[in-house]
Amino acid sequence: MKVGGRQYRTIWVADDGESVEVIDQTKLPHAFVVAKWSTLEDAAAAIESMQVRGAPLIGVAAAYGVCLALRRDARDAAMTEACRRLTATRPTAVNLRAELGRLTERLTPLAPGERVAAGYAFAAELADEDAARNRSIGEHGLALLRAIAGVVRGTRRLEVMTHCNAGWLATVDFGTALAPVYAAHDSGIPVHVWVSETRPRNQGASLTAWELAQHGIPYTAIVDSAAGHVMQRGDVDVVLVGTDRTTAAGVVANKIGTYMKALAARDCAIPFYVAAPSSSIDWSLQDGRDIPIEERSETEVTHVTGRSASGQSDMVQLFPDGAVAKNFGFDVTPAKFVTGLITERGVCQASREGLLGLFPERDWRLKTAGATA
Amino acid sequence: MKVGGRQYRTIWVADDGESVEVIDQTKLPHAFVVAKWSTLEDAAAAIESMQVRGAPLIGVAAAYGVCLALRRDARDAAMTEACRRLTATRPTAVNLRAELGRLTERLTPLAPGERVAAGYAFAAELADEDAARNRSIGEHGLALLRAIAGVVRGTRRLEVMTHCNAGWLATVDFGTALAPVYAAHDSGIPVHVWVSETRPRNQGASLTAWELAQHGIPYTAIVDSAAGHVMQRGDVDVVLVGTDRTTAAGVVANKIGTYMKALAARDCAIPFYVAAPSSSIDWSLQDGRDIPIEERSETEVTHVTGRSASGQSDMVQLFPDGAVAKNFGFDVTPAKFVTGLITERGVCQASREGLLGLFPERDWRLKTAGATA
Repeated sequence: MKVGGRQYRTIWVADDGESVEVIDQTKLPHAFVVAKWSTLEDAAAAIESMQVRGAPLIGVAAAYGVCLALRRDARDAAMTEACRRLTATRPTAVNLRAELGRLTERLTPLAPGERVAAGYAFAAELADEDAARNRSIGEHGLALLRAIAGVVRGTRRLEVMTHCNAGWLATVDFGTALAPVYAAHDSGIPVHVWVSETRPRNQGASLTAWELAQHGIPYTAIVDSAAGHVMQRGDVDVVLVGTDRTTAAGVVANKIGTYMKALAARDCAIPFYVAAPSSSIDWSLQDGRDIPIEERSETEVTHVTGRSASGQSDMVQLFPDGAVAKNFGFDVTPAKFVTGLITERGVCQASREGLLGLFPERDWRLKTAGATA
Repeated sequence: MKVGGRQYRTIWVADDGESVEVIDQTKLPHAFVVAKWSTLEDAAAAIESMQVRGAPLIGVAAAYGVCLALRRDARDAAMTEACRRLTATRPTAVNLRAELGRLTERLTPLAPGERVAAGYAFAAELADEDAARNRSIGEHGLALLRAIAGVVRGTRRLEVMTHCNAGWLATVDFGTALAPVYAAHDSGIPVHVWVSETRPRNQGASLTAWELAQHGIPYTAIVDSAAGHVMQRGDVDVVLVGTDRTTAAGVVANKIGTYMKALAARDCAIPFYVAAPSSSIDWSLQDGRDIPIEERSETEVTHVTGRSASGQSDMVQLFPDGAVAKNFGFDVTPAKFVTGLITERGVCQASREGLLGLFPERDWRLKTAGATA
């Protein structure tokens, strides 16, 4: 996607061919800063501090983190330790551990001397795969948005609500939930997005608002609590969100607050779609209760960070001294509240049957049948 | 209620017998400051800026505002103008216009020379009435909490979730939604409250957290979006909220975000009670769509105010420059999601029948029958 007219991805290998550069998302929307990682610890700390975030992006970022570790020591023990360190950074998104699993599988058979080059090649493949998946999600989602826009056309613009940031900043490129929005805008459908700030870290305010504005898409800022009221007023045609982990039964773990938006959409009879690249699907899980929910620092709840009048980043305290807080990063939306999953292979029902219809190779019954035949 | 061991109400007449003093709620939780009003404009501006807020409290505050106006000019035109200015400050809460209506009715028959003293006397009556109503709500709510606590007793403390601030700071004394919580705590029931910050103005963070801590009641701070997840985890036994306007059919307009909490409570089978003093009931309305919803400044959404590291109050910007925002102050919760209304006369179903059962004098059919008899 473009920033100030120049094409960017969120992560790339620097000109030295080894260091990794990323858009530092903790500096947005008030400053556009590129950060450089030279070591495993640079990458791990950056994922923890959410310099990069978004399930698809942190999967790729972790793969590059292993590459940085292998430059110093490419033996098995070092690779295992790098994966352990990176896996510990964020527990909820499945991409991170899945991509590290694939990377390890690819590199383990190789001699240590071949691993660095193969690692970088594989990380680049992962990045390209992510961009391609998201582009497809954009196309499948566009068909949905066209159908909805057809109903309101002539009366008003298409009204989309999203949550948190599932835009291109959450991925390598194109975004998941916002990919259809960009595709709609680019194909001439007038579209407007309701952007809720997404406390505690305000990825809606700082990232979604920023990337929509960069692309020229109009949006309106609201507080998270206003989402239900805006839906009740009839001002939303469709809700589009991302997912950090989707179970094989179509249950969705996504940024805290997603569940209540799904409830409001259901109560207001508004379609609620989840953009779910296959990389977000955890085929080993059915029940949402088995998804680990990340808990983050209390300070993110009791305080908030923004730009002060002087132009500096400042953190202000909201709760009284001594407040105890709980900071759940994600919540779980039951499949029954999800109108459909938008995957790179098309749109399906949020159910085991729906997902297996699009990903039949994941059906163990078919696999067993094949093995028996 | 007590602040640092000393008994306070939220509003009182100063020692000079004329000026009005209030706890400046824009300074909490980081500073306890008493503000003094000498003129109508002091009162009106203070209600607009939310130095005092909460439906019950602003009704009393507005009555005192008229008294301040009458000290300068007690003729009809001045009284009418004072009521107009004060009514314009906050459109959603019904108390404000109802109390001003009662005040005008009381003062209009009097000679201008008698109005000032009668006005202060009436405002004091309103304040005492509010405190008495809330004390009763506390008693009726306590019976409910006792029943729920009976179920969990021995396994854990009673878990209450609230929204915004419907504590004693929202009233003259005791609070509405928090009155039963204080009563439970005082009667020895171990109780814990989930306090969501309540963006955009963070009355949960700055007021509810502060007043609970002053009273020694443990609470946990969460962001608004986390309410659904906490309910889903099974960590909430009952939700208790206030109301800025309740229709005769039991529909509730309350702080933005209440509706989504009601939806989550329903989905999780958690009782959702609304503390509704009769002063909050608009007997002229049935449908929630007829309740005017206040829209406030965009800056409250795009920015947030807190205490910076230097100890000063600071406002930081969250959204990018140029963001357009909508700031709805309230939302509407359909009666079907309300388990019951806790009034000063007891608990009833959120319905016309439920309310008329407790307030039969409001039944126009009975009135008409009486007139015919």
